[in-house]
Amino acid sequence: MVSIKSIYAADERIRGNIRDTPLLSSPFIDKIAGREVLIKAECLQHTGSFKFRGAWSAISALKKEQQKKGIIAYSSGNHAQAIAAVAKVFSCPVLIIMPFDAPKVKIENTKSYGAEVILYDRLKESREEIGISIAKNRGLTLIKPYDNENVIAGQGTIGLELASQVSKYSIKNADVLVCCGGGGLTAGVSIALAEVAPYLRVRPCEPRYYDDTSRSLQSGKREVNIGSHSSICDAILTPTPGELTFPILKEFAGKGLVVSDLEVLITIAYVFKHLKLIVEPGGAVALASALFRKDQIKGDKVVVVLTGGNTDVKTFTRALSTLENS
Amino acid sequence: MVSIKSIYAADERIRGNIRDTPLLSSPFIDKIAGREVLIKAECLQHTGSFKFRGAWSAISALKKEQQKKGIIAYSSGNHAQAIAAVAKVFSCPVLIIMPFDAPKVKIENTKSYGAEVILYDRLKESREEIGISIAKNRGLTLIKPYDNENVIAGQGTIGLELASQVSKYSIKNADVLVCCGGGGLTAGVSIALAEVAPYLRVRPCEPRYYDDTSRSLQSGKREVNIGSHSSICDAILTPTPGELTFPILKEFAGKGLVVSDLEVLITIAYVFKHLKLIVEPGGAVALASALFRKDQIKGDKVVVVLTGGNTDVKTFTRALSTLENS
Repeated sequence: MVSIKSIYAADERIRGNIRDTPLLSSPFIDKIAGREVLIKAECLQHTGSFKFRGAWSAISALKKEQQKKGIIAYSSGNHAQAIAAVAKVFSCPVLIIMPFDAPKVKIENTKSYGAEVILYDRLKESREEIGISIAKNRGLTLIKPYDNENVIAGQGTIGLELASQVSKYSIKNADVLVCCGGGGLTAGVSIALAEVAPYLRVRPCEPRYYDDTSRSLQSGKREVNIGSHSSICDAILTPTPGELTFPILKEFAGKGLVVSDLEVLITIAYVFKHLKLIVEPGGAVALASALFRKDQIKGDKVVVVLTGGNTDVKTFTRALSTLENS
Repeated sequence: MVSIKSIYAADERIRGNIRDTPLLSSPFIDKIAGREVLIKAECLQHTGSFKFRGAWSAISALKKEQQKKGIIAYSSGNHAQAIAAVAKVFSCPVLIIMPFDAPKVKIENTKSYGAEVILYDRLKESREEIGISIAKNRGLTLIKPYDNENVIAGQGTIGLELASQVSKYSIKNADVLVCCGGGGLTAGVSIALAEVAPYLRVRPCEPRYYDDTSRSLQSGKREVNIGSHSSICDAILTPTPGELTFPILKEFAGKGLVVSDLEVLITIAYVFKHLKLIVEPGGAVALASALFRKDQIKGDKVVVVLTGGNTDVKTFTRALSTLENS
């Protein structure tokens, strides 16, 4: 079971190997949000997303023998890059299974770190089945993107950093908005904050049509996304909350927030203009919730995690086109 | 005279009010540069550029009476925004003189901070003359963008931070590439490093046709840029090195480096792709020098300052179009 102890242990393994990402803000963003917004720029993490924490936490916890035999992972792209980059440091052979329609920059970078990449069809094939079968045949260790205790513990280190970074603001009660796919980050941060900063409440944020976590938290059981809707938020388009992550969210997380693709695009443009950062669609969902769902948030301050920055030029240019006269 | 003492004094005034900006890197950037590149992301500073340091240093050093009467500044945009934002904190009235062809985002932001803005024609009018005359009439204190000792001392605090941030790399000898307009930042950082990290040598970096500092360092006297060449590097298009800054550069700085607008655009695109940051043309000149003038740089590591991120959508989109297949 993931506990605050596992998060401290993960923190010990990763500290010095990850970036302490800054907590930023902008008076212009505050104005739009109607409250002070404290923004953790995790898109500046190594490999451009928070996934590097979970990857380091998981790979560094493996036995030498497992590291030597090799690792397999499936991922829409950010977990892929992170696993590939960390595996390189630990000299592990690594095989990554990615959807063929993942952003080019993600596939390209994953290969650049030296990983073998197999592409699959997201709509027709099951990455879980492909992954488990190859893992068995080749004797590789499978590191799932969120249903893995060491991955969740690694992502939870963001909670420890957040608690320390916001301490100077003497917050009595605030929401922490987290972009949520399978729920690894949301679960890890929830556990950490419940222990070290219980005045901060995690709220999972999701793209429209992929609000399985929000609906599951309401119904009390793991709901599934139905239909074949498209979304630009490639990083967090999971079918249902994780097996390991959902019980944690049920215990610790507040109500979910849901935003549209257009709201996400506008948010990416605001981040360009006011924070000088690149955020990818799936990484902008939490800030979009702060800007466009203000009535569903309480308090004079809100904390937001920008989870990743691996976007294609095409999507980014589309986001910038929402800005008028700039 | 600006000394290490004035830089320490400025540091005392600004610490806690500025952002400690991170030192980033990317294996992909290292590969292109042919050596390890340590990149200080000063585009994440308040108001999107290092100028916030000098502005805080200068305004906080004024007498209460001067602050109350008000401040005047002329600037292509980054000093303008910084002075306007800091003046707001100190409740000083503020008038800013800006070229009418400055990036819209810079003019807009300066106004948003509550400053009165007067636009002038960069090619036909002298901002110095306009500034001095209005300052006299209204009893305002003029804070020049680089020829001001407290401004230079404020920018020099980047040198103190850099020395502390690179200390873990056990560097014996390396170049520190700094984007150079009037030379305020370059001078301040030169003085700081000469004292606290003499193994680091500052090298001013300039855009083609605006290489007055490089030429002045070669000839030993303040050279002037001739002709009416255009450049996208609006932040650093100064006619000649500053009166106060040039003697400092002559004493401490290494040889200048010069890059083209196209090289700057490609660099902006690389920063998008590999560092997840927005850098403006004038703020990318130093990194462009690391990438495209590698033969003029020595050592297995190089330090670079990304000085600002206030770019228009149009210029940024143009930069992204240099990336193939992304």
